[in-house]
Amino acid sequence: MDPNFNITKAGHVELLVTDLERSRRFYVDTLGFVVTEEDSGQVFLRGLEDRHHHCLLLTKSGSPGVGHLAFRVSKDEDLDQIERMVSRAGMFSKWVGIGEERGLAGRALLVEDAFGFPVEFYAQMAPEEWRIQRYDSYRGAKVMRLDHFNIMLPDVPSAYSWYVDSLGFGCTETTETEGKSPVLWAAWLRRKHTCHDIALTTGKGPRVHHAGFTVSDRASIMDAADILASSGYLESMERGPGRHGVSNAFFLYLRDPDGNRIELYTGDYISADPDWVPIRWKLNDPQRQTFWGAPTPASWFNDAMLVKSPRSGRFAELRAATIKDRPDYLLSDR
Amino acid sequence: MDPNFNITKAGHVELLVTDLERSRRFYVDTLGFVVTEEDSGQVFLRGLEDRHHHCLLLTKSGSPGVGHLAFRVSKDEDLDQIERMVSRAGMFSKWVGIGEERGLAGRALLVEDAFGFPVEFYAQMAPEEWRIQRYDSYRGAKVMRLDHFNIMLPDVPSAYSWYVDSLGFGCTETTETEGKSPVLWAAWLRRKHTCHDIALTTGKGPRVHHAGFTVSDRASIMDAADILASSGYLESMERGPGRHGVSNAFFLYLRDPDGNRIELYTGDYISADPDWVPIRWKLNDPQRQTFWGAPTPASWFNDAMLVKSPRSGRFAELRAATIKDRPDYLLSDR
Amino acid sequence: MDPNFNITKAGHVELLVTDLERSRRFYVDTLGFVVTEEDSGQVFLRGLEDRHHHCLLLTKSGSPGVGHLAFRVSKDEDLDQIERMVSRAGMFSKWVGIGEERGLAGRALLVEDAFGFPVEFYAQMAPEEWRIQRYDSYRGAKVMRLDHFNIMLPDVPSAYSWYVDSLGFGCTETTETEGKSPVLWAAWLRRKHTCHDIALTTGKGPRVHHAGFTVSDRASIMDAADILASSGYLESMERGPGRHGVSNAFFLYLRDPDGNRIELYTGDYISADPDWVPIRWKLNDPQRQTFWGAPTPASWFNDAMLVKSPRSGRFAELRAATIKDRPDYLLSDR
Amino acid sequence: MDPNFNITKAGHVELLVTDLERSRRFYVDTLGFVVTEEDSGQVFLRGLEDRHHHCLLLTKSGSPGVGHLAFRVSKDEDLDQIERMVSRAGMFSKWVGIGEERGLAGRALLVEDAFGFPVEFYAQMAPEEWRIQRYDSYRGAKVMRLDHFNIMLPDVPSAYSWYVDSLGFGCTETTETEGKSPVLWAAWLRRKHTCHDIALTTGKGPRVHHAGFTVSDRASIMDAADILASSGYLESMERGPGRHGVSNAFFLYLRDPDGNRIELYTGDYISADPDWVPIRWKLNDPQRQTFWGAPTPASWFNDAMLVKSPRSGRFAELRAATIKDRPDYLLSDR
Repeated sequence: MDPNFNITKAGHVELLVTDLERSRRFYVDTLGFVVTEEDSGQVFLRGLEDRHHHCLLLTKSGSPGVGHLAFRVSKDEDLDQIERMVSRAGMFSKWVGIGEERGLAGRALLVEDAFGFPVEFYAQMAPEEWRIQRYDSYRGAKVMRLDHFNIMLPDVPSAYSWYVDSLGFGCTETTETEGKSPVLWAAWLRRKHTCHDIALTTGKGPRVHHAGFTVSDRASIMDAADILASSGYLESMERGPGRHGVSNAFFLYLRDPDGNRIELYTGDYISADPDWVPIRWKLNDPQRQTFWGAPTPASWFNDAMLVKSPRSGRFAELRAATIKDRPDYLLSDR
Repeated sequence: MDPNFNITKAGHVELLVTDLERSRRFYVDTLGFVVTEEDSGQVFLRGLEDRHHHCLLLTKSGSPGVGHLAFRVSKDEDLDQIERMVSRAGMFSKWVGIGEERGLAGRALLVEDAFGFPVEFYAQMAPEEWRIQRYDSYRGAKVMRLDHFNIMLPDVPSAYSWYVDSLGFGCTETTETEGKSPVLWAAWLRRKHTCHDIALTTGKGPRVHHAGFTVSDRASIMDAADILASSGYLESMERGPGRHGVSNAFFLYLRDPDGNRIELYTGDYISADPDWVPIRWKLNDPQRQTFWGAPTPASWFNDAMLVKSPRSGRFAELRAATIKDRPDYLLSDR
Repeated sequence: MDPNFNITKAGHVELLVTDLERSRRFYVDTLGFVVTEEDSGQVFLRGLEDRHHHCLLLTKSGSPGVGHLAFRVSKDEDLDQIERMVSRAGMFSKWVGIGEERGLAGRALLVEDAFGFPVEFYAQMAPEEWRIQRYDSYRGAKVMRLDHFNIMLPDVPSAYSWYVDSLGFGCTETTETEGKSPVLWAAWLRRKHTCHDIALTTGKGPRVHHAGFTVSDRASIMDAADILASSGYLESMERGPGRHGVSNAFFLYLRDPDGNRIELYTGDYISADPDWVPIRWKLNDPQRQTFWGAPTPASWFNDAMLVKSPRSGRFAELRAATIKDRPDYLLSDR
Repeated sequence: MDPNFNITKAGHVELLVTDLERSRRFYVDTLGFVVTEEDSGQVFLRGLEDRHHHCLLLTKSGSPGVGHLAFRVSKDEDLDQIERMVSRAGMFSKWVGIGEERGLAGRALLVEDAFGFPVEFYAQMAPEEWRIQRYDSYRGAKVMRLDHFNIMLPDVPSAYSWYVDSLGFGCTETTETEGKSPVLWAAWLRRKHTCHDIALTTGKGPRVHHAGFTVSDRASIMDAADILASSGYLESMERGPGRHGVSNAFFLYLRDPDGNRIELYTGDYISADPDWVPIRWKLNDPQRQTFWGAPTPASWFNDAMLVKSPRSGRFAELRAATIKDRPDYLLSDR
């Protein structure tokens, strides 16, 4: 049965950074995010395609990580339905009042889900100028919008059930382990009509692996690599550029000055068909992660972002995965 | 109130062509559509991103035009709801039984709407191999999928009301006439999360102006122009390549060997926000049609495809627009 | 017989502009030329690939036009050989001493050739930082370097003889008139191993039709069009973007704020073969100018830049062409 | 003093392959080389930009490697001058008569140089149809032309002297070892006006490291990677796609079915300036090989192509380098 509320898309993400100026140089001066608003503690950023206040919120903090992920819903009443459901499921939640998070134009519901993730739901955000045809203001990587979250947790099958059965996400692609009794190792789930709004990956968690931001085309990703390489961010480029097997997108993974990870992403597909049959991949398929076969650096599996518990205000404690958390073909020395 | 059915996207279009072999050379050999199935009377084509039987159906016919447009719905029962609604509205409709249109995996409802257009609704189509990662089979313009229809009719405001209020489409952009009492001259309407599934334009109608097909990026459109120009299709390129103001997409308009018009299209935006405020353009804004200011050839306003009446089986009779059907900046000599 | 000097390439061009600040906004802020040096009367610009002081010199002047064109030669003694030759040919010339033109690192020879053009020859220019891998400083159209000059004059066959027989240029492509006694209508001539350093075109002259500057790829030209269209330079885009037949290059023709014309150009070929047979085009071939068949605006044939006479210091007087100066397929209304 | 002959460019290369059909699938069907002529023992290939018979010659052989490299000279008499010089230098050479190598339209001089490489010089080759504007025939990687050779040998400084002082090449870039007494480790040398016609690299030799072929733009290299990855050539992609530090070009290194190595290459620069000062790199600069910092697989330094001795008809014996043959940052596991 469909849920009685409508999540529309991955809405925004709050990254914790230790030095706002340093982060601003990375995200704004180098990658080309647009500053909507800022003060001494926060910078609110949006992409060139965004028509609302922010899709990326940088908050000054003692240590890096993720403050919260957020999904946008269709209307304010949807939030009440979600509150009822998470409450029934025994999850912690609290209302974020108007004015408590700048840019939001209504209340929001902040949930600590059963897997330990801080997930905010909101219906309204302040409108902002669309820059999509202000090509004269395009800079750096020309980031257009937030596309998706990728989260890492020990129990992907349970999270899959929560997102698909309770929150109404559709599944576009999966990764399963090899062997006679394959286990669901990762899943790509969507509300908007793209490959995904959120991906679930097996690993020590709760952690956020990365937030993916869309750029217009492959050229923008190549240009971003050139720009990063000539402006002191050589070490920021962790993986790529390359073509994904899963999602078919072209990618470049970056570590920001605090080590937080984002992805520049372009070229997946439209998934509007109601009967979409998930594309199934095997964990050790060398083309799954990178269609061109290039192995992935170990840091890509070792490192991910801690998440702040809405309940405790501290970073959530981690549990290790009980099945293997990476393919066998790993690139050992990076 | 939302409708009690769910249209998911522009599904497919039937183009009438007078010489199947000649059309096949254009659509398959030159543009790179994938042939799913064909016989002496029809060729069923899909794009590289399509996972179903066809998005373009070429039917041999005595004269060119459009057999029908088709929207896909979520489930079979949606068709009953639509039938009730069109029946109440006094429109002609008839069921297309399983097997009557090859590739459909269930019944379909063929409607002659109040504006004279043959519009089919269907829920199920036979699955086909996804070619998105068969890059070795990419050819020509590398057409990925159907994106939208653009139809021409005298009374856009009434059609707008039908699509938005009755069929549940959202409006992303509009064009209005100048002056003190501006009139809605065109509208871009969507179900899937892109700029549009259908555009309504003022002009003599009912006619279909074009069907838009997506390619991956600007390079594919440039490549298509080079290929067409070196393989005897110089005259097929009617307008572009260029950047649209409306939709922000990159485009190239083509006339097939029968004069039917299609668009190669790429680079619009994701419209998943529930509170999307339509972008409003003025008819005579020189950047509305082509963001770079290039005027449009007269043929672009003069010519469009006749549509076959589901009721009579003949081409629908045309009525002229009662307001002006084109901007003032027209390029006179093409 | 080969000449006893060695012209290496089109070196730089001096454009006369009436408002330096306005021109600087166009060339530097919008197109991305790099400023090497400037004062109240001149701005010295180079491209991202240039390793020397300037390839474009803007000089404040009462009216627009071209101050001089300049070719670089291999060594200082080459200038003496050229002086002897032009003197024998009865052309006016004068030495430009060290320090008279900023950036030059040796003397130069300024010639008024038999066709009325101010052509400078120089061997040495001050070196400057190479920006080719300073991708963080790429802006706008990302202009890389000067590629060629295109000049317009009544008597192309005579100029062809001067450039090929006396100055040692090779011919890569030609345009001839139709008919039983075809006449050489235009020629593309090169010293460096590309399509051309200078093109000769039939028309009222002496005038300079445009200076062509190289960008890295087609994407840069599309991006430039988007940037110009969104920063108030819509009227600057005179022709293109498109693909040339002649040269095979991708192009966009721009008029600067004074009406001076430049071309953004990319994608010709390497012409290092010693036995290159010129590609021959007919004047009315619709694919000659634009491979995709788009007609050319009338302004493209009507307008060109006046040139300053080295002898008189005034603009050279014009003589009309005695054969037709344009193809028949002209786009009449722009 | 300049030599009394004129080498114009890297002309062609003969690769030895063990299975012509298998190689044809790779070079023709997948990469898009154009077949000029073929028989049961040889396939003569050219690029889309080539106007002559072949730039790549595949010869059926018992084991892989390089038959010969070839440079084109301006005129037939240049060959006599070269013969005199190599004879004085004590090198073995022999004339290749007309008809002995198909496609050559005159005699050629085959030299075994002092470093053991089989280097052919020729002035005339049979003309062939230019495919540059036959975009309808572009396939696969859309290879345009041969760009350069990269050879590996123990003594780069001596080879540098031969190429620069005796053969008249210009040096565009170098790599030197670190330390107080840096040694020339590699050099990029050119006759045509690009980054290079031949690169000299320190290592066990004489071996040919790769032959570089030009494609039009970065998109063509990305497309090639996608095509190779989806047509069974995953293992062929040894390194890249990426951006070089040296040459600034975008690259993808491929191993053909026999393990012979070629490079797809695009986007270097024009080096027509007579006073070009070589760009100097240090061996361990992480951006030297790949501007984005990605390390290079060990195979890239271990493997290279054996060369056939013109004197003995057998593969030349190898001598090891006496200085280190690779940087320290090597990627160990590929």
